This record gives sequence, C-alpha cells and structure tokens, in this order.
Amino acid sequence: MKIALINENSQAAKNEMICDNLKKVVEPMGHTVYNYGMYSADDETQLTYVMNGLLAAILLNSKAADFVVTGCGTGEGAMLALNAFPGVLCGHVVDAEDAFMFAQINDGNAIALPFAKGFGWGAELTLQYVFEKLFGCESGGGYPKERVVPEQRNKKILDGVKEITHKDIMTILKEIDQDFLKNTISGPKFQEYFFENCQVPEIAEYLKSVLN
Amino acid sequence: MKIALINENSQAAKNEMICDNLKKVVEPMGHTVYNYGMYSADDETQLTYVMNGLLAAILLNSKAADFVVTGCGTGEGAMLALNAFPGVLCGHVVDAEDAFMFAQINDGNAIALPFAKGFGWGAELTLQYVFEKLFGCESGGGYPKERVVPEQRNKKILDGVKEITHKDIMTILKEIDQDFLKNTISGPKFQEYFFENCQVPEIAEYLKSVLN
Repeated sequence: MKIALINENSQAAKNEMICDNLKKVVEPMGHTVYNYGMYSADDETQLTYVMNGLLAAILLNSKAADFVVTGCGTGEGAMLALNAFPGVLCGHVVDAEDAFMFAQINDGNAIALPFAKGFGWGAELTLQYVFEKLFGCESGGGYPKERVVPEQRNKKILDGVKEITHKDIMTILKEIDQDFLKNTISGPKFQEYFFENCQVPEIAEYLKSVLN
Repeated sequence: MKIALINENSQAAKNEMICDNLKKVVEPMGHTVYNYGMYSADDETQLTYVMNGLLAAILLNSKAADFVVTGCGTGEGAMLALNAFPGVLCGHVVDAEDAFMFAQINDGNAIALPFAKGFGWGAELTLQYVFEKLFGCESGGGYPKERVVPEQRNKKILDGVKEITHKDIMTILKEIDQDFLKNTISGPKFQEYFFENCQVPEIAEYLKSVLN
C-alpha cells in the first residue's frame, strides 16, 4: 500500500518524528511511505489544513496514494477539509482503538490525527499503536465481527451518497482557485512522488498545466 | 439557538439520556432542543448513520436547525456522513476540550459523539461538559486566542472550498434515492419540528412532495 503523509503548517515541526514512527511500523508490513511534507515550520511551501484536504483528494482520486495520514493541532480541521472532497473518507483518530474500529467499521482511506492536543509524553507510542492497528490487518472486516453485514452495507451506501453530494474531482480542480491549487502542489517532493504514482492521466496532465 | 438531536439505530436506546443531558445544559442558556430521534431501538423509523448525514444536511441547509448534535458507536460514521454534505461542518468530539476547541477554531455547525466507545461511568458528565464548552460562549473566537486571525481565515476558505466541492442541496435532494430520502424524514416528530422551523420554502415544498 502507498501511504502518503501530509502535515500542515501549525504542526510542521513534528513531520520528521511522525514520518519516522509511521515508517517504523508500516515498512516491515510491506507498505511504502511518501512524505509530502511540510517538512519544517519554515518550509517555503506552506500548507494550511484546507490545502491538506485538496492535496489528499488529489492523491487519493488519482490513486497516487492508497491511504493518507494527516492531521493538525486537534485533527478536526484536517478531517473537515479532507471529507469536503469526493473519494475521501477521513477518520478522526486519537488512539489505537479509534484506528482499529475506523479501519474495520468505516473502511476509509485517510485519518486525521491531533498533533498538538494530547500530544505529550508517549505521543510516539500513540502514533505507533495507531499505525499498528490501522494498517496491521485487512480493513472492512466489521467491529464487532457480527455487525459486519450492516457495516459493509452502510459504507457502500455512504460511498454512493458521496457520489451524489460531490462534484467530480476534475470539475473541482478546474473550478477551485488556481493559485490555491498551485500552492497546494508546490512542495519540493510533490512532482517526484506524484507523477511517478498517479494512475489517472487526466489529473496528471491538468496538474502539469497548472504547474507550468 | 435551535439545536437538533439525531440518533442512529445502533445507539438509539441512549436517546432519552442524551436528550435529557443536552436540555439540562443548553435550555438555561436560552437554546431550544428539537429531538428528531430515533427514540428507542425498536422505533418504526430506523435511521442509519448515513441517514443522519442527510437529515442533518436538510435541517442545517433549511435553517430549521442552527446546530446538530449526533453520533453513533464511535462517532466516526455519523461524522463522515454529515461532512459528505454541503453546508455542514461536523466535528468529531470526544471530550470537553475537543468541544471548546472545535467551537473556537473550526466554528462548525454539528458534532458527532461516540455513544458506545468510552461511554461508561461518567458518560453523562462527559456529555454535560461537552455541551457546556460547545454552547457556553460565542464560537469562532480562536484557540489559542492569538491565532484567531489565521483560524477565522481558514474556516472561511474551507466554507468556500465546500461551495465548490459539493452540489447544491436541492440537486442532492432530487438526485438521491427517493426512498432513502423518504425514510430519512419519516420520524414521528419530523413534520411537526421541521415545517414550523424551515426557512427555505423550496426545501419545504420538495420534502412535502416526497412525503405525499
């Protein structure tokens, strides 16, 4: 699985620590981490949590990433911004139990973590346990197990509802403020990571035209 | 403020307890609670968390409610479903600190609570403290205070992004499965509470045609 990490400006200083703990847990499972930054508080490309939403939607809808790990101070802003987009189901996950139940019940493709609230002693352990339970077994298996049938049904209905409530991603990319879009994809590693993994040529071509 | 409470089927048995605690805290503040149910596990009208999302979107976009309190077992499904709709910013709130920071930083119009996970001894206290901090003072004031300017800016940008990523509510009401819509608004109190408070005649008229 290709897992993208995205940090916004207020907690950007923690990117390296978060990335290290993510890699430590998921690389032995065979997953690959793509760190899209921000990498430090004074990066030239500043991402707000709203831009995290747009970036995550680009990565997931283009299949450049299978899963996005993101967050902000409380995790709420990033969660709201990601869920504003089609093709994104972003959980707000604060502990390992949330991670496991979100994977098994909701079977989403992104999580937003609080990187300031409750992020003290043991924060690296919380991150590791979250990643273990999120990525450690196949998702969508139900919790509790005997509720798997209605849970899978509701997830499918929600996917169908989101197809109706959202415009499609290409329309959004064209209608959204183009400077906002360009800034969102201006990180130093975006072009390298994105264009080698994007599986939707229409999105790749459009983003190339925006960057030129 | 008009506050709507919506419960889905898995935690419907807790509706009365949740409603009592909500009223206990917010009625002395001058707010009014509209309990849209479900009222018990064996209600004739069964709401799933996805239907909670549609119902909340109807109430908020029609201004029949100013704020929606909802949830499910973990709160994640209801949160995902509400945020799938235009005009809805739903936080995932598990404690009083989340409630306060969500109100001050994100200034949303809905919260989804976990009514099973972590819902043991003291659960009625958690609910009361959440409602105190959520509704106890004006929202959108920033947290920490000195970050109010970028926080208000990002909230405004996210509102603008959602105007682009979603279809409008009338299009959604017409395109969504009409049985799903009808079931969502078939609760025993819906017609009484909704039609006396709805401020968008186009929505009221359309829903009347669906109910007939």
